[in-house]
Amino acid sequence: METTTNTALATVITPSDLLAHWQGHRGLTRRVIEAFPEEAFFNYSIGGMRTFAEMVMELLGIAAPGTKEIATGQTVELIEHIKHDNKKAKILELWDQATEDINAYWAQIKPEQFQEKIKIFGQYEGTVWSSIFYFIDNEIHHRGQAYVYLRALDIEPPFFYER
Amino acid sequence: METTTNTALATVITPSDLLAHWQGHRGLTRRVIEAFPEEAFFNYSIGGMRTFAEMVMELLGIAAPGTKEIATGQTVELIEHIKHDNKKAKILELWDQATEDINAYWAQIKPEQFQEKIKIFGQYEGTVWSSIFYFIDNEIHHRGQAYVYLRALDIEPPFFYER
Repeated sequence: METTTNTALATVITPSDLLAHWQGHRGLTRRVIEAFPEEAFFNYSIGGMRTFAEMVMELLGIAAPGTKEIATGQTVELIEHIKHDNKKAKILELWDQATEDINAYWAQIKPEQFQEKIKIFGQYEGTVWSSIFYFIDNEIHHRGQAYVYLRALDIEPPFFYER
Repeated sequence: METTTNTALATVITPSDLLAHWQGHRGLTRRVIEAFPEEAFFNYSIGGMRTFAEMVMELLGIAAPGTKEIATGQTVELIEHIKHDNKKAKILELWDQATEDINAYWAQIKPEQFQEKIKIFGQYEGTVWSSIFYFIDNEIHHRGQAYVYLRALDIEPPFFYER
């Protein structure tokens, strides 16, 4: 009976549902990247903020590398700038590669790891779950900012609730 | 052994950690509300979007009422407009009341409910966990937009990673 209670207590979300939730968000972010005109993606910003291209570099630097660190236990360097030749097509290619990499590394994460402590990118202390939640929350945060950029450019963003 | 494996499989995040995670986000959103000048909070927007006051009305309409519906099983109406007399102090008062209400209703949610299906606000089909994740994600999304409003107003927003 004790065991049953503990099992029930713990099941807020399963690892596979969390992955699907994240990849659903990443699919939406991909559509937001697609919605940007090529020029605005790399150059447009408001209030001295970064361009969405720069924010997407950060997201790419976090997502697959962070998942790799969790899966392998080997500290990964946080690299927020990558070569993209000012081409959205190149960024989308990197995005799709990251999608596959995340799936592959996720499959190596042991279920009991989620509650373990980790210092992600050798810098940020938390648990495995809190690190992954940070990856997702940070993506939603910056994508929300991109929605404002798109609206200011008179472009209708994709629906937030469609994943 | 089978039971041990299942328990481990399920423990991505505990209900109390999910509540703390959400309330951490809500604390940050509160500081973003505070960062807005009174006038801009109710009137400023970019690209024809809603003011942050209007977005916060939506967040208030979702958070405590949605948690109440999950806790009690009684369908709650989604009300996105509330009387606030154009005063940030009134909004912050409602925000703090919602914080208490969420904690009180959360304590009534049974651990085994998170995987159950629900039609939140009588309209949106999902599970209890996916509904709560939507509440949180939607808050992060709109707060990210408020960061752009603040930057455009030349106001430094609170740090995203401080909860």
